Formats: sequence, C-alpha cells, structure tokens
Amino acid sequence: MDKNVFIKEPHGGNIYKASEQFGIKKEDLLDFSANLNALGVPRSLKQYIIDNLDELKNYPDPDCLQLARSLENYLDVPADMIVAGNGASEILFLLFDVLKPKKVLIPAPTFIEYSIAARQSGAEVKYMELREKDGFRLDAGKLTGAIEPGVEVVFLCNPNNPTSATYPRNELEQALEYCIKKKILLVIDETFIELTDDPAGYSMVSRIKGCDNLFLLRAFTKLFAIPGLRLGYGIGNEDLITDMAERKLPWSVNTFACNAGDVLLKDVEYLEKTRQWLLEEKEYLFNELSGFWWMKPFKPETNFILVRLLTEKYSAGSLRVELAGKGILIRDASNFMFLNDRFIRLAVKDRKSNEKLISVLRTIQC
Amino acid sequence: MDKNVFIKEPHGGNIYKASEQFGIKKEDLLDFSANLNALGVPRSLKQYIIDNLDELKNYPDPDCLQLARSLENYLDVPADMIVAGNGASEILFLLFDVLKPKKVLIPAPTFIEYSIAARQSGAEVKYMELREKDGFRLDAGKLTGAIEPGVEVVFLCNPNNPTSATYPRNELEQALEYCIKKKILLVIDETFIELTDDPAGYSMVSRIKGCDNLFLLRAFTKLFAIPGLRLGYGIGNEDLITDMAERKLPWSVNTFACNAGDVLLKDVEYLEKTRQWLLEEKEYLFNELSGFWWMKPFKPETNFILVRLLTEKYSAGSLRVELAGKGILIRDASNFMFLNDRFIRLAVKDRKSNEKLISVLRTIQC
Repeated sequence: MDKNVFIKEPHGGNIYKASEQFGIKKEDLLDFSANLNALGVPRSLKQYIIDNLDELKNYPDPDCLQLARSLENYLDVPADMIVAGNGASEILFLLFDVLKPKKVLIPAPTFIEYSIAARQSGAEVKYMELREKDGFRLDAGKLTGAIEPGVEVVFLCNPNNPTSATYPRNELEQALEYCIKKKILLVIDETFIELTDDPAGYSMVSRIKGCDNLFLLRAFTKLFAIPGLRLGYGIGNEDLITDMAERKLPWSVNTFACNAGDVLLKDVEYLEKTRQWLLEEKEYLFNELSGFWWMKPFKPETNFILVRLLTEKYSAGSLRVELAGKGILIRDASNFMFLNDRFIRLAVKDRKSNEKLISVLRTIQC
Repeated sequence: MDKNVFIKEPHGGNIYKASEQFGIKKEDLLDFSANLNALGVPRSLKQYIIDNLDELKNYPDPDCLQLARSLENYLDVPADMIVAGNGASEILFLLFDVLKPKKVLIPAPTFIEYSIAARQSGAEVKYMELREKDGFRLDAGKLTGAIEPGVEVVFLCNPNNPTSATYPRNELEQALEYCIKKKILLVIDETFIELTDDPAGYSMVSRIKGCDNLFLLRAFTKLFAIPGLRLGYGIGNEDLITDMAERKLPWSVNTFACNAGDVLLKDVEYLEKTRQWLLEEKEYLFNELSGFWWMKPFKPETNFILVRLLTEKYSAGSLRVELAGKGILIRDASNFMFLNDRFIRLAVKDRKSNEKLISVLRTIQC
C-alpha cells in the first residue's frame, strides 16, 4: 500500500487531496469529513448568482455595507459591531493579528486553527482538557481556575468541534463575568450554533451589546453548506471591530459572498427544512452508530458525531483508508489535542447518505 | 453641498461608496475609476459558474493544484514556483508578512498598497521619484543609485499604475543584475502586463526560473474584468513560495476562482478581442483627450490614462464631484505619492462609454 494514504490531513473536507491520495474520483467519494448542512447549496443562492454574474466586473464593497446591514437585522446587533471576512478563518487570524495577546487559554479538544492563529501572532497557548468522562462539557469553575496570570484571551467553540457538545448557558455566563472582572477577552466560535436545536438559547449574541469582553465568530459556511463561497463574520466591541476592519485585506470577501448574505438570511424555507433534517438525522445516525459493538458515538448536539473506536483492529487512520476504498471519506480525529488514534468524526448527512454509511460500516470486519 | 462628497477614496472602483456619496444609483454611474478589461466578464466564466454552482458545497482546494497546473502551462514556470491568492493584494501582504524586510525602495508615483503592506510588516519605506519630464519612465542607473544600504526589497509596477508607462526591458534587466549582486529582492507587479501591446516583451517571467532575486505579482482581475471573483498569484523561488503557502490563510481563494483559471486562460476568443479593443480604444481615447485645451493626457501603454489638469478652475477632487453629477466616475489621483490635485486617472473603456466620457467632458466649462 502506498504510504501516502496515511498522510494526515489537518482538516476534513479536502476532497481534492483525498481524491488524489486514494486515487478515487471526487464524485465517487461520499464526504463525511466536512460538517455541512446536508441540504446542499440553497437554490436561492444559485439563482442570485445566475442573476448577478456581471457583478463580478465590480470590486467587492470592501466594507460589505449591505451585508453588515442584513446582519444587523438578523442578529439585532449594530452594524459597527460586525466585520465580515473570507470565512470565519480570516476573522480568526485577523483577530489574533490585531490583539497580539501574550497568552491564550483554549479548552480542548477543539478546532486546531485557534492555536495555529494564536501562535502565529506570537501568543503562548495553554490548554485546558475537556474530559471524556464529563461528556467533554465545560465547567466554568474549572475554566476560570485554569486561567493563569497573563492570559489575555480565552477561546471557546460552542457547539464544540469535534465533540459536538454545547456548553450550558449558565457556565458561559459565569465564564464571561469572570473575564469581565479580569479584563480578559472571551472569544466564542459560534460557527455551528445555528445547527443546534436552540440557537437563541445557546448563543451569547444577546449579551454582546455594551460588553467589551466578548467576541463571537460566525459563518455562513456550515449553515448554508457553502464553504466554497467564503463568508464569515466577527461580532465584537466597536473599537476592536474598527481595528480589524482597518487591518483587513481589502476586498477579501468576494462580490457574490458580499452581496448574497441578505438572500440567504431570508431563505425561510431552507432554514425550516434545515431544522427538520437536523432533528431527524442527528438522532437517526446516532442511534444507528450506537448499534455497532465496536463504536462509541458521543451524543451529538450539532451536525456531526465524535466516535471512539472500541476495536483494536482499526485505528482512526487505518479505518479512514479502509472506508475510502469503499467510497466513504471520514475525519481521522487523532490530531485533535487530547484525542488519539481511537477517535473519528462523522458528519450527519441526508438519510440516503447516512444509510449508505451504515451499510458500508456493516461490511467492516472488526 | 454635502462635505462628504469630498471624501478621498484610497482606490478607484468603489462604486458602492461612490453611489452612496453622490446619491446616484450605481447602475447610473459609468465607472472610469477602475482599470478593467472593457469586454466585461467573459462568457466562458459565466457558463463555468452556472455549470458548477453545486461545487460551492466543497471547501476550495487550499493548494489550488488545478490552477497551479494551468498556470505552469500558461507561464512555462514550474507549479511549485507559483502561489495563488485572494487577488494580487493577498499575495502582496503575504509577501511582506513573510519577508519582513527592514527597508523597501519604491519608485513612485505608484499603487498605494505597496507602501501600506510594507509598513504593516514593519518596513521603512523609501521612495524614488519618477519624474513627469522623463515621461515617468524608469532609469536603471537612477534606481540603483537610490538603493541605500539596508534596502532589502525594490518594488516596481510594470506597466505602472497610475502613469500607464511601461519600463524598458533593458532597464529592468540592469536593475535585476544589480539586485542579484546585492542580494536584494526585485518585486515587479505585472497585474496589467497582459494589457500591453507586447506582454512577452515587457514581462520578466522568462527570467524567473533559477533566479532567487525576482518575484512577480500577477492577477486575473484586470485582464478578465473580474475584480469581484478575487484571483491573483505570485511567482518566485520555491523556498519563498513554500513559506508563503504555509503562512497563507487556508481557503482564501474561493471555489469558483480556484477552478475557473483554466477556463479563462483557454478563452482564446476573449483574449483576441481584448487585443483588438485595447489597440483601438487606447489610441482613440488618448487622441480625443488630447483635443481638450485644459487636459494633458500622458501617452498610455496600458488600459488607463493619467491626465494633468491644466485649468485652474477644477482640482482633481472638484472635477470628480462635477463629473459624478453627470454620471461619470473618475479617479482623483491626487493621493498618489509625488502627484497632486492636478492629476486624474481615466480607464480606457468600450467605444460607446469612451464617447460618452468625451461628450460629458465637452460640457465642462473651464
């Protein structure tokens, strides 16, 4: 076997590389490695693009004014507390580039890019372990206890990637109170928040007005299944947002992304179908996976499932290779801090795809 | 009159802001402030996007492999000497972010973002004046004479924005020889090079293989009139390109930009029509402008014309306001280093638009 097939990918969703790596056409790979709305690209967006192809001849609005106004309405937050970016990842790197914090605390396992962005800005990164036996949940007391002197930013992900656990609202409120008192910035990545069963209940967006110590990361990527379009945003206090907007690459958000936000946020039919899909499929896939003796899935609270492998026959890496040969691409989760080669992550997809996954998993000899 | 109308724009092409500033719908503004191919968005690209709307559900290939291979063929340069970016501007900022040069020399007037990117990386910026009486042309002897001790990067734009002057090939060769000897990096922004009458003759791309001291900036933006899509690239030595690729924001180039490069580079019909258009309209507009007693246009070598105002009645700023009221948006060029409020810049557009510009200019009382 070619040793290239064991190359670790830092993220899921790189079907181009996976296709080369495994010698399988990307059309023939069912991608469970990227956590996206299974409804696919909204029809409303496609129509918008078709109707506005000639808009490409204009530079994008560097201030994304129209988008900021749509978001102002959607979030009930003033436009000057919002900065749009080339996906949440531009906002993440920009935030650290502007803040240049000395020390950052990150509860983990979590999305790997936080520590990459923090280190790139010169920060020292401290981790606090979210433990499997606590269901990877956040305890505010433990979190604040882990905040060493010198920590200037605490970085959370809610719901958390890859654990699919939400953090209780009261724990977040306690953590925020502590951060306010200690003049620490609490950053919460809420890029999956709209794919939970109670976005308004879990999100801290209602707390952001007048609060200088809270910053939220959001994106259109997961909710609307459009990672290829590149659209994310940050919400924070006006001074920080101004600094970020000044430092930002001009025109980093392309014209379609810049102008289509309003169309997407008003696509009520798509959003309603999303709720239905998630409610049914999250449950369905979790229950089906729970039926395998060799897998321990953790109860998902958003559109992906973390799984511990209980069989010794496969590691995350070798299972990934085995499944790719059967047309299924999964996320080897062993490169997340505090996880190991026993962990994989699976996206919740549409019923037909989920059934296909289950039937392929049944062919695996453990 | 609202004082907002005198707000200086750092760049041309912001029709969103201009539209707000002047209270004119953007559809009613003929934009001579952005220097783009007047043929507009290629039909081949539109068709490609329409046929591939569902590709947005995939993350873009972070390495833009397909694009790099198309460019390898187009430029006759190995793919590992090429890095793609969110417009040439991402490449520009990334280059400085990786190099962090102590001191940079920039012949000016030229595109403003070079010095912004250089200063943001911590560099000291030195300017060398390109003089009007020399036709804003580059003299290699003067350039190398202006290279102080400590200069690590020399940054040129060829053809130069806003002067529309190309730099003679022999002067560039001399400058490069000097840079090689002194271990200085010569960076040339060639984003307009394909909109000259001899791209192969003016470009230094044939010199780049095996040369560690040359870096070229290129883009699809101007040639294909797609500033809204965001696609540029850098060409340089493998080590520098590797460092830039590692430092780059993941997925900064969206899926359409990433995948459409090949379609565009093979659109022979569009490229041929472009040559025809440019040949005729550059000449036409220059000749027409030369007929006004109150304007001194400089002979253009690419798709825009720098003009000195000879009348005292208008400054660049007040003429911009006057013309906006008549549905024409021009570039006030007074914020370019070494220029002043006597200078404007006009894009070369299609015949109908150029005629409209001329007829509106005839109504101006000087």
